[in-house]
Amino acid sequence: MRTELADRLGVEFPLFAFSHCRDVVAAVTNAGGFGVLGAIAYSPAELDAELSWIDERVGGRPYGVDVLVPGKIEGPRVDVAAFIPDRHRDFVAHLFRKYGVAAGSGREIRSADEFAGRVTAAGATGLIDVALKHPIGLIASALGPPPPEMVARAREHGIPVAALVGTVEHARRQVAAGADVIVAQGTEAGGHTGEISTMVLVPQVVDAVGEVPVLAAGGIADGRQMAAAMALGAQGVWCGSVWLTTEEAETAPAVKRKMLAASSLDTVRSRSRTGKPARQLKSAWTEEWDAAPESPGPLGMPLQMLVAEGAMARIGAAAERGEPGAVELANYFVGQVVGQLDQVRPAREVVYAMVSEFADAVERLRRLSE
Amino acid sequence: MRTELADRLGVEFPLFAFSHCRDVVAAVTNAGGFGVLGAIAYSPAELDAELSWIDERVGGRPYGVDVLVPGKIEGPRVDVAAFIPDRHRDFVAHLFRKYGVAAGSGREIRSADEFAGRVTAAGATGLIDVALKHPIGLIASALGPPPPEMVARAREHGIPVAALVGTVEHARRQVAAGADVIVAQGTEAGGHTGEISTMVLVPQVVDAVGEVPVLAAGGIADGRQMAAAMALGAQGVWCGSVWLTTEEAETAPAVKRKMLAASSLDTVRSRSRTGKPARQLKSAWTEEWDAAPESPGPLGMPLQMLVAEGAMARIGAAAERGEPGAVELANYFVGQVVGQLDQVRPAREVVYAMVSEFADAVERLRRLSE
Repeated sequence: MRTELADRLGVEFPLFAFSHCRDVVAAVTNAGGFGVLGAIAYSPAELDAELSWIDERVGGRPYGVDVLVPGKIEGPRVDVAAFIPDRHRDFVAHLFRKYGVAAGSGREIRSADEFAGRVTAAGATGLIDVALKHPIGLIASALGPPPPEMVARAREHGIPVAALVGTVEHARRQVAAGADVIVAQGTEAGGHTGEISTMVLVPQVVDAVGEVPVLAAGGIADGRQMAAAMALGAQGVWCGSVWLTTEEAETAPAVKRKMLAASSLDTVRSRSRTGKPARQLKSAWTEEWDAAPESPGPLGMPLQMLVAEGAMARIGAAAERGEPGAVELANYFVGQVVGQLDQVRPAREVVYAMVSEFADAVERLRRLSE
Repeated sequence: MRTELADRLGVEFPLFAFSHCRDVVAAVTNAGGFGVLGAIAYSPAELDAELSWIDERVGGRPYGVDVLVPGKIEGPRVDVAAFIPDRHRDFVAHLFRKYGVAAGSGREIRSADEFAGRVTAAGATGLIDVALKHPIGLIASALGPPPPEMVARAREHGIPVAALVGTVEHARRQVAAGADVIVAQGTEAGGHTGEISTMVLVPQVVDAVGEVPVLAAGGIADGRQMAAAMALGAQGVWCGSVWLTTEEAETAPAVKRKMLAASSLDTVRSRSRTGKPARQLKSAWTEEWDAAPESPGPLGMPLQMLVAEGAMARIGAAAERGEPGAVELANYFVGQVVGQLDQVRPAREVVYAMVSEFADAVERLRRLSE
């Protein structure tokens, strides 16, 4: 398929696959799509290793990296954990008791501390530097406008910068900040989302940003939805949820089972995992934080992220041991398309199915117009 | 354009226009679309007059009627107003004082009482009987499965029954109850909506209902969005919001001005007008009912409808006199596409623009696939 953006990036089929799993990124890229590795979980050294692994497997095909960049890259690294109020720590301890989640090794808490360091300030810079040493074709900023430093470094390397937006106003701001590609993400998407649906948002963003190419995100897990997104004016689609139930995905088995069983009503936009509204599976975790009378309410970002990541690591480990309370609490970011995900397939097959369904949808539309 | 449903209903372009305004219904029908008159505001005698007016103008072209039918058509008519608690009446009086809304004539309260009678029980039956005396091509049930009596009467007259749904489960239930056409309505739609977006809902409903034709609703106000809906598998689209700012629409001028100025962030799903979650313009009315500490919280349907309709009639009259507090309170049901509505056009021109944009979008998709 030929869109201007697909040509520019050298991708056969403008299906962008956001995933934290290198296997998904490589599989999609090798199948003709464009894998984008979510780098947030990694240290710079780990990211370097992941990208080298991908480089060895994709034979020069283009892929990208997504970094969760805070608004500004500056300031000293502070021990943010010290800012977590006792009543938030107490509430987590209460949840562990109420749901009978056994104590963890402590390792997951340390790893959460490291994790938080990466999203607060200088953490992102190291990841960007590492990413630009690899033959990537795109670098994305998942939250807020890309900082000037990121845009400048990417420009030096000739790498286009993509930015996710949930409103027309944000799209204009991102373009002004130097974004080369806008990902217009509807409220139905997994992870951090706004309130406006993909159907409503995409055409408005396309009209607002002029020549800047737009990818559509949110609500896209089959080729009909991809065709719909392109009808709205997008030059490609950005999908995350659909990969979570693939063979390659590292989604925790208990959560994968929940996703395969879930309907599109089983997600919620909740601040309980990151401090900002993020769509995820409804679970005892979201219900307790958002509705329990004793809940102190989620903190902001990144504090709530720190609270949640350590707890979720412990919950995840307990869920894998089959502890029923932990299974009730376990969840993960996913969009409303979770209702369409009812089988485990190789990522490659998802790409091929979308290519074929896309062609069918376009042919059906063409015949309607005869 | 040829879809099976368009052929069956004898409509040129399967754009269904839901409107409470007969002028919009006639204009859309005459432009090649399919107007559907929302009958809820009328008594049976009034509806009869409205439909006769339309009959005289559309030269035999097909149009439809939408009745807000309660789940069951039975039981004696009761004075539902007697069930409104004093603190809800007091809260409305408090809002009138706080926003300086002058007293009305009392006529609007009586008309609200009549109105409520129509959505409670036997009211809908009279409207259905009247509608079936006219040469309508479709009868729709906006809420809940069509009652067996409605299906039976429509069948006797050979008129297909359409039903609005917001989940796959409801779609299955509506088909089982005898619906001939399913309108799958996403959360971005105006009025009563569920939580699932159009992009996610439509393909799932199409897959679930087999041969039953599906119309897409929610987020559709231009031809790109219509093409997207058809790519998802819909046989046509059902639009309501886009007509509210047309020349013909009877939308109150103060509310029309708000709509023309609004962005897609300026709507909210609130129970404050009908007792069920319905998307509408954010205004002081929705904010007070949903968030003020002194709010008693909305009642259920139809009680909240009775509370709100009388108050809104008084607010509307005051807003037309230019009272600023009343303008703050005034609102109306509208979807997120309100952000796209920035000019007043004749309904006919909206239809022609959608036809042309639809063709452009399909041609653009076709070229991508070359």
